[in-house]
Amino acid sequence: MTANTGLPEKKRRGGGRAARVALRAAPLPEDSRPVRPGLRGGQYSPLTDAEVQRIHAAALDALEQIGLSQAPPSGIAAMTDAGAVLGEDGRLRFPRALVEDMLAKAARAFPLYGRDGRHDLDLSADRVHYGTAGAAVNVVDLATGSYRPSTAQDLYESALLAHHLDNIHFFQRTMVCCDIADLIELDLNTLYAAASGTTKHIGTSMSDIASVAPCIEMLHMIAGSEGAWRDRPFVSLSNCFVVPPMKFATESCLTMEACIRAGMPILLLSAGQAGATAPAPIAAAIVQAVAEVLAGVVYVNAVSPGHPAVFGTWPFVSDLRTGAMSGGSAEQALLTAGCAQMHRFYGIPGGAAAGMTDSKLPDMQAGWEQGITNVLAGLSGLNMVYESVGMYASLLGFSPEGMVLGNDVLGQAQRCVRGIDVTEDSVSLDVMKAVCLDGGPGHYLGSDQTLKLMQTEYLYPDIGNRMTPKDWVESGRPDLLATATARRQQILTHARPQVAADADLAIRARFPIRFGHAPSSLPTPTKRPA
Amino acid sequence: MTANTGLPEKKRRGGGRAARVALRAAPLPEDSRPVRPGLRGGQYSPLTDAEVQRIHAAALDALEQIGLSQAPPSGIAAMTDAGAVLGEDGRLRFPRALVEDMLAKAARAFPLYGRDGRHDLDLSADRVHYGTAGAAVNVVDLATGSYRPSTAQDLYESALLAHHLDNIHFFQRTMVCCDIADLIELDLNTLYAAASGTTKHIGTSMSDIASVAPCIEMLHMIAGSEGAWRDRPFVSLSNCFVVPPMKFATESCLTMEACIRAGMPILLLSAGQAGATAPAPIAAAIVQAVAEVLAGVVYVNAVSPGHPAVFGTWPFVSDLRTGAMSGGSAEQALLTAGCAQMHRFYGIPGGAAAGMTDSKLPDMQAGWEQGITNVLAGLSGLNMVYESVGMYASLLGFSPEGMVLGNDVLGQAQRCVRGIDVTEDSVSLDVMKAVCLDGGPGHYLGSDQTLKLMQTEYLYPDIGNRMTPKDWVESGRPDLLATATARRQQILTHARPQVAADADLAIRARFPIRFGHAPSSLPTPTKRPA
Repeated sequence: MTANTGLPEKKRRGGGRAARVALRAAPLPEDSRPVRPGLRGGQYSPLTDAEVQRIHAAALDALEQIGLSQAPPSGIAAMTDAGAVLGEDGRLRFPRALVEDMLAKAARAFPLYGRDGRHDLDLSADRVHYGTAGAAVNVVDLATGSYRPSTAQDLYESALLAHHLDNIHFFQRTMVCCDIADLIELDLNTLYAAASGTTKHIGTSMSDIASVAPCIEMLHMIAGSEGAWRDRPFVSLSNCFVVPPMKFATESCLTMEACIRAGMPILLLSAGQAGATAPAPIAAAIVQAVAEVLAGVVYVNAVSPGHPAVFGTWPFVSDLRTGAMSGGSAEQALLTAGCAQMHRFYGIPGGAAAGMTDSKLPDMQAGWEQGITNVLAGLSGLNMVYESVGMYASLLGFSPEGMVLGNDVLGQAQRCVRGIDVTEDSVSLDVMKAVCLDGGPGHYLGSDQTLKLMQTEYLYPDIGNRMTPKDWVESGRPDLLATATARRQQILTHARPQVAADADLAIRARFPIRFGHAPSSLPTPTKRPA
Repeated sequence: MTANTGLPEKKRRGGGRAARVALRAAPLPEDSRPVRPGLRGGQYSPLTDAEVQRIHAAALDALEQIGLSQAPPSGIAAMTDAGAVLGEDGRLRFPRALVEDMLAKAARAFPLYGRDGRHDLDLSADRVHYGTAGAAVNVVDLATGSYRPSTAQDLYESALLAHHLDNIHFFQRTMVCCDIADLIELDLNTLYAAASGTTKHIGTSMSDIASVAPCIEMLHMIAGSEGAWRDRPFVSLSNCFVVPPMKFATESCLTMEACIRAGMPILLLSAGQAGATAPAPIAAAIVQAVAEVLAGVVYVNAVSPGHPAVFGTWPFVSDLRTGAMSGGSAEQALLTAGCAQMHRFYGIPGGAAAGMTDSKLPDMQAGWEQGITNVLAGLSGLNMVYESVGMYASLLGFSPEGMVLGNDVLGQAQRCVRGIDVTEDSVSLDVMKAVCLDGGPGHYLGSDQTLKLMQTEYLYPDIGNRMTPKDWVESGRPDLLATATARRQQILTHARPQVAADADLAIRARFPIRFGHAPSSLPTPTKRPA
């Protein structure tokens, strides 16, 4: 065998099970792991190039002919200064040349920082990152099969989980803190729960423009200074700047302007729902979402040229029988992948939603819906896959155990994104000849090449079970949900707050923080109720 | 609204819920269903064109330099006549020109017939069909969570289920009839269980060359005559003509020759296992599978030029920690999709395996593994997606309820394959203008366009649940597995044998058929055991 295993000589000489066990014990360098943040997607293109052009042209027409209503005066001033036209009907219309100018000014290939530099996200090209998002108002209680209102403590614990699950690359607010009525306190706790849980990049929302100043003050305290925050802004604003179809969300636009001034990257989020607030044809829903986000690109760059803004076309799907949202449908997978292709066309970092399930529990339906939508989002080269883990009941519920299981789903999706390595080594006939010819062993078990690839090319599930039926029965038929529950407990038992103790003390003295450090009472691992 | 809904005037005038209900009650013409057999794939390409060429070149090198051992004398005679070279080491080697000649002679774009013409499969281009396959030796008993040996009766019932589940397009043997020891009786019962259950295209296996004559006699009886059989051969032979790596399976080759003479299409099946009987690098496993099946193409066309043969590169994956097979892994999804791309390159109808799960039960793992592997197989344009439904525990178990649930997975995969319709209508701004401008309603609910697309563009799950948490609780928290169990029972209660009574009598008089017509005792719907 002439394959270069790249391993130290001593290990290469060993063979068989003992060698495999020894090899597995050694930690892998980050760039040798079979999956990692920022793998290149783009192997899947639901649209032809001509179709991309057609959608682009229709979006430009929509901006020119329909435009958007309800921009705030400050936005109208900035955008008409840049060349937008305010009609007598109060709608702001965007000539094609203006959109093209602003696309030319828009920030490209910018990073989104983590507080820990190891978690920085490189949003260039078709690099793929998976993370959370959502505004669930319930936590799924697996032990009772019931939904209960989510709290700030739940949000903090979901951030801790995200911090410790490798295939989750960023953490955007998953749940609404339903235990906090005051909007400013809500926004402060939402932000601080995320920052206390993880040093990965954070996305947050602001329900009230009055939250901006205290939230930014808090961020300066976490970062150590305003300068440190502005150098590496580790929180982006998830901002619904439009109310589809084709209306600016006046208040949210003002919040966005304030956050831009404070140096916070923006997620320009257009969340129409095909068949309700967006057209029913998938292509037309993409047209409308693209038009709306292009309006946002004009807005951001009119206010602050080159300010980092993620192209957040997030069209959702209606179940047209009921009008209710369906997050786990194939139509959702297509919408999201089609949007990702438009992001690639514009060359601007993009985000969209995938991995949501309509199921109420982590069951088989949750698996296929999360699997299909997440893998297509990644293969389409979506830079930021939001909502990708833990979101149940069409975004109404968050499941911590579902997040632990979803980490396995994301691993599989990322392994697909990584793709097939076709290299000199990987298609060389040397190994095949050594196995087949001249009294070779007739199989590849234990070959150096097999040993080498075991850890770097093959991904193993954390919770997923690959036992034979016999081993499975002898192990007492381990239940997937019980295993996930135990894993959640294990993570939360050992997890530590991610804000330094002195900063934490100062922040808790300054702001009304409504959650504690200790994980809430954890259930003992249990099977799903019958 | 100016969109042409294509509906009769009377229905167009109606609006709202009543109209939607009326519309849903009307059956859709087959070609208006949101999904159907033969949708065009190919939107996903894990390999670049250069990588495809490189794998092709390596496969030709392997055939020329390594070749295959253990061909039977008749095969050696046919292939050396055509230009293959028998070495002193007993290996048959294939000059590049020979392979290219035989590729030129190979049948392309042939159909695989159903007994009912509505189920004919058009294997041209990248048309995608999903179906079953496997040699499971266990049935999963959901009521007890245990595995028990599979029987001829189980096989018959799985064929009945496949017949009544729309997203399953063909039925290849799913299970081994473990209650039949005699190999010829086994093959006869395997074939007849499938034919009794479905008029969709059937794939079968033959364990003994002595089975060929009686099986063909039975097929003539089912068809009505030898001529009727040869006109529309509705059964193909799933034939493991190679034992990877790079050896012919001597006995199976003889069976293949006999079936070719009897007019039966062949599935040229190379089922290596990466890391065990195939190289560990995914690319190299594809090289070996392609080389082996190209040898099969030479074989078939040397014996009978232009005989229909499916390019059956079925490489499986080893979990390299244990050597055991992993059917549900991302690596499997990549192997299968890569093979499909090679089939497209050769322009020969191809088949491979997807949709297998390593899980023991229809749980969340089963969902994500089946979802990811099936959707990528379809998007890669695989003509025949084998093993796509019902296969558990890395092919060791078959679950009837899993098959019912899998039908939903296949529906979602097929909806993804169908893709995004970008047409004049679907990107027209007329509907958007009517909604947004001049006092329009500001939403798309109840628009003619939405109503029109409700049935033709949006697919609804059969078992999957899209209720809100509130409705779900009020409905008693319906359990996915209980719903699937009830659906299985409903289908089997109403299903009828698919061989006419007189032919059935004659066949049962002539051959030792070991299963009855009535479905076996069906369990009452039950929840999964705690």
